[in-house]
Amino acid sequence: MVSIQMIKSFRPVNQLLSGSNVSYLKTKRHLHSKSLQILSGIQPTGNIHLGNYFGAINQWVKYQDGLRSNQEFLTQLNDNGSMYDQFLPPIYQIVDMHSITTSHDSNRLRDNIFDITAVLLGCGIDPEKCILFKQSSVPLNGYLCWILATISTMPQLSRFPQFKEKSAGYKDVPLGLYLYPVLQVADILLYKGTHVPIGDDQLPHINLAKHMTSKFNNTFKCKIFPIPNEILPKSGAGRVKSLRAPEKKMSKSEADTKSRIELTDTSDEIIRKIRKSVTDMTSAVTYNPADRPGVSNLIQIYSSVTNLSIEEVVVKFNGKETFQFKQELGDILAEYIRPIRERINQLSNDRHYLEMVLMDGATKAQTIAEDTSHKYNK
Amino acid sequence: MVSIQMIKSFRPVNQLLSGSNVSYLKTKRHLHSKSLQILSGIQPTGNIHLGNYFGAINQWVKYQDGLRSNQEFLTQLNDNGSMYDQFLPPIYQIVDMHSITTSHDSNRLRDNIFDITAVLLGCGIDPEKCILFKQSSVPLNGYLCWILATISTMPQLSRFPQFKEKSAGYKDVPLGLYLYPVLQVADILLYKGTHVPIGDDQLPHINLAKHMTSKFNNTFKCKIFPIPNEILPKSGAGRVKSLRAPEKKMSKSEADTKSRIELTDTSDEIIRKIRKSVTDMTSAVTYNPADRPGVSNLIQIYSSVTNLSIEEVVVKFNGKETFQFKQELGDILAEYIRPIRERINQLSNDRHYLEMVLMDGATKAQTIAEDTSHKYNK
Repeated sequence: MVSIQMIKSFRPVNQLLSGSNVSYLKTKRHLHSKSLQILSGIQPTGNIHLGNYFGAINQWVKYQDGLRSNQEFLTQLNDNGSMYDQFLPPIYQIVDMHSITTSHDSNRLRDNIFDITAVLLGCGIDPEKCILFKQSSVPLNGYLCWILATISTMPQLSRFPQFKEKSAGYKDVPLGLYLYPVLQVADILLYKGTHVPIGDDQLPHINLAKHMTSKFNNTFKCKIFPIPNEILPKSGAGRVKSLRAPEKKMSKSEADTKSRIELTDTSDEIIRKIRKSVTDMTSAVTYNPADRPGVSNLIQIYSSVTNLSIEEVVVKFNGKETFQFKQELGDILAEYIRPIRERINQLSNDRHYLEMVLMDGATKAQTIAEDTSHKYNK
Repeated sequence: MVSIQMIKSFRPVNQLLSGSNVSYLKTKRHLHSKSLQILSGIQPTGNIHLGNYFGAINQWVKYQDGLRSNQEFLTQLNDNGSMYDQFLPPIYQIVDMHSITTSHDSNRLRDNIFDITAVLLGCGIDPEKCILFKQSSVPLNGYLCWILATISTMPQLSRFPQFKEKSAGYKDVPLGLYLYPVLQVADILLYKGTHVPIGDDQLPHINLAKHMTSKFNNTFKCKIFPIPNEILPKSGAGRVKSLRAPEKKMSKSEADTKSRIELTDTSDEIIRKIRKSVTDMTSAVTYNPADRPGVSNLIQIYSSVTNLSIEEVVVKFNGKETFQFKQELGDILAEYIRPIRERINQLSNDRHYLEMVLMDGATKAQTIAEDTSHKYNK
């Protein structure tokens, strides 16, 4: 039996509406006018794979481990980030509310929440260095979502490429598919996210967030929310591709499990999947994503695992054959994943600990959300 | 400076999602499996008039003052209500979140919230006998709104007559217009409303609530929410009509203020508005809403004020002329409104008291909302 920590001092966002003169203590966190707040979210799905790892989770670990020394990140900021007084610990949400957009298997969702928590911690996310929590633990985002809905228009949402794509298969389109970009914006604003790492396909979403932030600040004649900025993957950094159909992204939804390396795969499975990965008839190890997507994808993975540049990898395997390269990649990748897998498996067996981590994160997130809501009242 | 009462022990609805085994104390309130819960809402607008009073507020007062002895109410229940173990105090919400559906004048909204609170208390709403609070004080409804959105479809909302009507004037339809029926359902469900007094035009809304309640209970395999029932105005009870265009409802939006009696009108204004009300060329006092809407409306008002039946009123004024009837109606209506107006004016000057009343109501409402959210966890 677990007892959820009492969250005291709950004050709703509604002071925007009521406008009563409430005095409150500002937390240290938000005293700074120029704070940089990284914010990101991940859906609690199973089958977390190498694409998720190198595309998001590994970046999350790097952000938490120090932004001031993260040159790749700093180069994406104006003025190298010197305009910010404070780099706040990143906020990472497990977006379970988004998970029910079209699916409602509560038991599976519950398991997936624990699984993704174990995966994140196993990959090196450190609850002491970031705020990791479950989105639904702070239901104030639902309230903010309503307020944002009142300053949105229907055409804004109908235009979303992802909405068009996902709704195409339905006779009666689920309302959640239509509405979820607004909830996403609420999730950024509630925690005053200033920088949101995204993939290219999410640019319309961050643009909606920018638009709504301005509109909120204008409509309610306040400057509560900073305009959020996107952090895009560094140019040239190819996404991890499917091992079976390397022209596509590695994906949990591809039927053939040999198409992806999951973080809980055994060393044998990893080595076998790499060995069986689709390449082409040329045996040389050369990087050419357009013409040779298979081997180029493997070179990219090798580069990510070893921190060697693409060029360095190509030079290293100059004169060697693809099967030798696959063998070596299989071995080093298996060795790279091994400690991660072991930590994930160990953590997965300790639900009590996982729950405690999420509760602690929820308490911190709730405090920030309340603080934001108080700002409405100024 | 007002300090909002701390609401402790906040636990979000999300336990539906997280499903952790939390033990909690059930409140006495919801121990009964068969509790009757009246629930209603009013928008915080100004210009509250006789139509609002006889159409809603006066009913609210009657509900709070005892349902077991309210024959008119009991006849609307199956089995005269004997199937209910417990008649809970009614819950009345000032729906400020709905007020921002298309308009965002925060200062005016704030004033209107105080005004409507003063009006309700002035009309006899007793915070000891009901739960009166401001909708936005319990932001859990926003969260529930999201969950309900995920089990709704877009065609359900597009079909709403009110949506079609209200959205017709917009090039870019505000999302709030589309979404607000879902928030309305959340407001009923969060407090487990079993009976919702509505006008005929709101039948589609209560039907949506019924549908969503079943769908929620089925989707999440639980029976948390009772199916809500509508309480319709008693048949034959005409709505109060405009004094200038008696074929239409009395409305705050009609430009000519002589069309309505507001609860803050002086006695002189009331007497003058009744005297100048549009009737017809026949001087007899007869009841025939179709052919003689003007005088019939006045007879209806006389009946409501005096508790005489329509027939009794007609008999009473048999042989008298319309101008005499208007004179007497003006006098008794002015005398009826006088103590209400005086209380409203007195209360309007005591914002501190009004705020305390709303906070007290919010605390009670929050407790019920939390209790509902705990039920998800069973």
